[in-house]
Amino acid sequence: MIGTLLTRLALLSLTAAFLATVAPAHAADTAQEEANKKVVVDFYEKAINQKDFEAASKHFGNRYVQHNPMSGDGPEGLKAFLGVLKEKFPQSRSEIKHVFADGDYVILHVHAVREPGTRGSAIVDIFKLEGGKIVEHWDVIQPIPEKAANNNGMF
Amino acid sequence: MIGTLLTRLALLSLTAAFLATVAPAHAADTAQEEANKKVVVDFYEKAINQKDFEAASKHFGNRYVQHNPMSGDGPEGLKAFLGVLKEKFPQSRSEIKHVFADGDYVILHVHAVREPGTRGSAIVDIFKLEGGKIVEHWDVIQPIPEKAANNNGMF
Repeated sequence: MIGTLLTRLALLSLTAAFLATVAPAHAADTAQEEANKKVVVDFYEKAINQKDFEAASKHFGNRYVQHNPMSGDGPEGLKAFLGVLKEKFPQSRSEIKHVFADGDYVILHVHAVREPGTRGSAIVDIFKLEGGKIVEHWDVIQPIPEKAANNNGMF
Repeated sequence: MIGTLLTRLALLSLTAAFLATVAPAHAADTAQEEANKKVVVDFYEKAINQKDFEAASKHFGNRYVQHNPMSGDGPEGLKAFLGVLKEKFPQSRSEIKHVFADGDYVILHVHAVREPGTRGSAIVDIFKLEGGKIVEHWDVIQPIPEKAANNNGMF
């Protein structure tokens, strides 16, 4: 009797665990991926739009490996870049069009406009995170052309 | 007795289901995301490297919305592009450096070289899939510069 009761309790507990596990298995993002997306979006807003290096840099892990060929390596490279942005393009704005996450990586599809009224550039930024902190960055940047061979826009 | 046996069988079956569910819940990709990655990698290889429109086009869904500003809309746009590639850059090769998936989207980070021995371009391609078929494409393309402000490369 007690054995049966214990089996039933174990069954109930397993059922609960099973149901709790089904949802994440079929959703696009794990909890870590969702958290990583929030970290990267906040980092991007603080860095690229607010141009606030101190606020952005709280998201760095134990390194910031930079693959953008125009930028110096490490947090100091971002600091210098934001200094230039602040001085030369204080009105520059980047709009995040789409955020993707896969494992330790977050990918942003961005429309960046350095001077209001210009077409700007399409950018994809890729960030690698470790323990919820940003440790590496790659990007690809393309100016939006005046004319296109289709009517769909770049986003 | 039979009730207890059934309970135990149900318990065993739930345990198996639970264990089978744990792995996908904590892995980066769902089964659909894994399948989507395979579809896009095969499409890319057939289209961009083998330049075989017929083989690639089996992966199209009911539309192919093109956001690359140099390419015409739809499957016909890709067909024309591959024709140009075949004629002008028959030795062109694209190496996929990283594949990401999030929900219906697959993202490729690619090193494309049109003529052997040249530096080539960094590209990020974004594909949207519906029911395992490719329906939309965006990309961002940047020529790899001769000199860089860091030693990390663009990949």
